[in-house]
Amino acid sequence: MRLKNKPWALPLIQENPQYVVTEPQKFRGQWQERFAARQPLMIEVGMGKGRFILEMARQNPDKNFIGLEVQTTATGIALKKQLAANLPNLQFICGDGNEITEMFAPGEVAGIYLNFSDPWPKKRHAKRRLTYRTFLAQYQQIIASDGLLEFKTDNQGLFEYSLASLNNYGMVFDQVWLDLHHSKEAADNVMTEYEEKFSQKGQPIYKLAARFESKN
Amino acid sequence: MRLKNKPWALPLIQENPQYVVTEPQKFRGQWQERFAARQPLMIEVGMGKGRFILEMARQNPDKNFIGLEVQTTATGIALKKQLAANLPNLQFICGDGNEITEMFAPGEVAGIYLNFSDPWPKKRHAKRRLTYRTFLAQYQQIIASDGLLEFKTDNQGLFEYSLASLNNYGMVFDQVWLDLHHSKEAADNVMTEYEEKFSQKGQPIYKLAARFESKN
Repeated sequence: MRLKNKPWALPLIQENPQYVVTEPQKFRGQWQERFAARQPLMIEVGMGKGRFILEMARQNPDKNFIGLEVQTTATGIALKKQLAANLPNLQFICGDGNEITEMFAPGEVAGIYLNFSDPWPKKRHAKRRLTYRTFLAQYQQIIASDGLLEFKTDNQGLFEYSLASLNNYGMVFDQVWLDLHHSKEAADNVMTEYEEKFSQKGQPIYKLAARFESKN
Repeated sequence: MRLKNKPWALPLIQENPQYVVTEPQKFRGQWQERFAARQPLMIEVGMGKGRFILEMARQNPDKNFIGLEVQTTATGIALKKQLAANLPNLQFICGDGNEITEMFAPGEVAGIYLNFSDPWPKKRHAKRRLTYRTFLAQYQQIIASDGLLEFKTDNQGLFEYSLASLNNYGMVFDQVWLDLHHSKEAADNVMTEYEEKFSQKGQPIYKLAARFESKN
């Protein structure tokens, strides 16, 4: 969702180029140089206020993480958290998710997270959904051959659509959750801001983990 | 679920060979001869008491239907309904769903329905689920190349499993419903006995429509 514009966000981003990249195409193929260690690179497309990617980076010091977000204010809020945490394995990109093939080289990314992205419920807006086939084609270009795409949403229509879209694209499903918070994997689930609020209403959170290529 | 044995069921079946086939392998490749008209053949694997297949046959006189059921008592209950309705496009098989490739010739079946089949929730029983890959291989053998498999269940675990199983088998999803009774297609949905009872509890009914081959 769009946040109310915060005038402090843009200056804060500009003052902290060590954490936020605003010209990501300059680092295409060289993202590892921005981290303390060379290790698998996981990205979240549409990180919002960054709670998920920050917690993932904290829990997984053996991986590098990049949170991508187009909104300046949301990026600024995420940056504030990172300025407090100073995680060596976390970077942000303030930029458009529609340009990821210009940001990352083929195979540069080990995994992609899509969390609670905009459902775009009208059929004529289907092309804007982050699980539309043109987006899948972009993910496929940048993800390593055994890389996992993990998708979470509370939106029933978007999940129904996405199951068919990923399947029709030829992606291989690792696992499907129709009520993640009451599953065996609930304890390991890192929540977004939105997810924590939403789940208190008792409605199910859906999740799909899928690959572009067969495990065989 | 298993019904209490009714002693009248077996004699009733034996008295009505015009509607119930107990040696289905004898009609392999020749099922059309048992119907008033040659038209697409739809089968339900595990019809239970037959409400769904009877109503489908009534609503779709331009298709032929076969309800397959291993339990004698359930088949007898379905037969009673057909003896009242006398639908010319409906036949029953009292037999084991694990033997369908011996019952039907390749391509003889235009569509397959699986409704509320046993979830077999224990992992060690996964092979018994009607969406396990060995069953899918059997469906694939008998279904026409553009034939649709339609699967309904209220069981979350079975639906999660089946989405991954059909996807991993390479099937192409036409559509997924995570709450069929509140979808646009609800009015066209023909319910089973179990489905009608269950849906009154307000829990979602899941549905998947999928093909073995791409539409392209």
